[in-house]
Amino acid sequence: MKAIVIGATGIIGGAVAEALEASGHEVLRAARRGPLRVDMEDPGSIDALLESVGPVDAIVCCAASGRLASLVESSDAEFTLGLQGKLLGQIALVRRAPKYLRDGGSITITSGRWEALPGGSFAAVVNAGLDAFAQAAAVELPRGIRLNAVSPGWVRETLVRLGMDGTPGTPAAEIAGRYVEAVESGVQGRRLT
Amino acid sequence: MKAIVIGATGIIGGAVAEALEASGHEVLRAARRGPLRVDMEDPGSIDALLESVGPVDAIVCCAASGRLASLVESSDAEFTLGLQGKLLGQIALVRRAPKYLRDGGSITITSGRWEALPGGSFAAVVNAGLDAFAQAAAVELPRGIRLNAVSPGWVRETLVRLGMDGTPGTPAAEIAGRYVEAVESGVQGRRLT
Ligand SMILES: NC(=O)c1ccc[n+]([C@@H]2O[C@H](COP(=O)([O-])OP(=O)(O)OC[C@H]3O[C@@H](n4cnc5c(N)ncnc54)[C@H](OP(=O)(O)O)[C@@H]3O)[C@@H](O)[C@H]2O)c1
Ligand SMILES: NC(=O)c1ccc[n+]([C@@H]2O[C@H](COP(=O)([O-])OP(=O)(O)OC[C@H]3O[C@@H](n4cnc5c(N)ncnc54)[C@H](OP(=O)(O)O)[C@@H]3O)[C@@H](O)[C@H]2O)c1
Repeated sequence: MKAIVIGATGIIGGAVAEALEASGHEVLRAARRGPLRVDMEDPGSIDALLESVGPVDAIVCCAASGRLASLVESSDAEFTLGLQGKLLGQIALVRRAPKYLRDGGSITITSGRWEALPGGSFAAVVNAGLDAFAQAAAVELPRGIRLNAVSPGWVRETLVRLGMDGTPGTPAAEIAGRYVEAVESGVQGRRLT
Repeated sequence: MKAIVIGATGIIGGAVAEALEASGHEVLRAARRGPLRVDMEDPGSIDALLESVGPVDAIVCCAASGRLASLVESSDAEFTLGLQGKLLGQIALVRRAPKYLRDGGSITITSGRWEALPGGSFAAVVNAGLDAFAQAAAVELPRGIRLNAVSPGWVRETLVRLGMDGTPGTPAAEIAGRYVEAVESGVQGRRLT
């Protein structure tokens, strides 16, 4: 199968691209920098990317993120970081994807585990919103196209990069397995953890 | 107690304002039209409203809504109706509210039941996002301030207004009881249905 991975230079996206290749798929790697460019905050650039690569079997997005922000102290812009790229960008991607996907193709987006923790309330909006979106939007996709959301908890490599103890995290390669499952199996409208 | 009801000229907000008054509270009714104005799409107007009324014990929002929109056929603007007012507006309200609420005061926002139904995928984002937000943001509120979301299913009066059979809907007065419960009881970070 031919797959695009958006955010393929990142910790999760890199592991997903490797895992899909190891599974025998052709992988096109996209990010804001590098040969195949897209900015998830700019829907026009999503159209341009999908137009340029032609029909594919799988579109996977592990790009763009939010940040912890205090509920009361932060500015509106700081607080809603992640809105344009992670939430609205992935929604825009799903809305555009059917036009470029072969029959029975798949879209896999990324949400994330959320908890009621200080600074985490907008991440809760984004992640719970994306999980609900994957479930609800799946019923409207044409031609057997499938949509799922992978919802990772902390990734081991991310904790290590932040100078923390990595052991409570899940290795990126293990999380990549959920994306491969979303692409290869028949799952539809699910949240994979 | 002194309470503001935003969207008090609407089907749910009107019932909430009546129920709070019947329970002995002083109610200030706000909407985009009328003597006490606010536009939930404009955070500056939320500040202006709260500033103008002075300290209150309860802020209730039953204003602004989304609309069914096809996942693939609608424009980005049609699809994300409800984003600015219902989702981001209520989030902006919660972030500003503590400054104007007395100790132990409450904020009650409105989400809504969602299902995986054609045209409902952005409503799912908004409603699931608001439910998660109420749970997550509640832990960051100072001075005993509480936050809850009421998540109504179809309201009887709304179905009737749309020319449909009202019997499967819940009477607005019954839903108003959930808002009164959110204001008067000690519930915190909950989704009330
Ligand atoms: N790592 C974790 O512990 C963890 C846990 C839960 C959820 N998640 C979620 O998983 C996703 C990926 O996380 P990650 O840790 O792998 O991130 P990461 O290492 O920071 O990588 C992000 C990737 O996305 C690209 N990117 C960033 N912004 C973009 C944009 N606006 N448009 C297009 N590409 C963009 C980056 O490349 P360029 O900068 O060149 O564009 C990079 O390829 C995010 O949604 C994150 O919230 C991560
Ligand atoms: N009714 C249902 O069956 C149902 C079911 C589930 C969820 N809900 C949710 O419940 C909430 C209230 O619904 P409803 O049926 O009572 O609505 P409604 O009858 O249309 O009333 C909406 C109220 O909000 C005000 N309003 C609208 N947009 C506003 C804005 N941008 N800023 C400030 N005020 C605004 C309106 O007055 P002005 O026009 O003068 O501003 C009116 O007072 C919505 O969030 C809706 O999604 C309703």
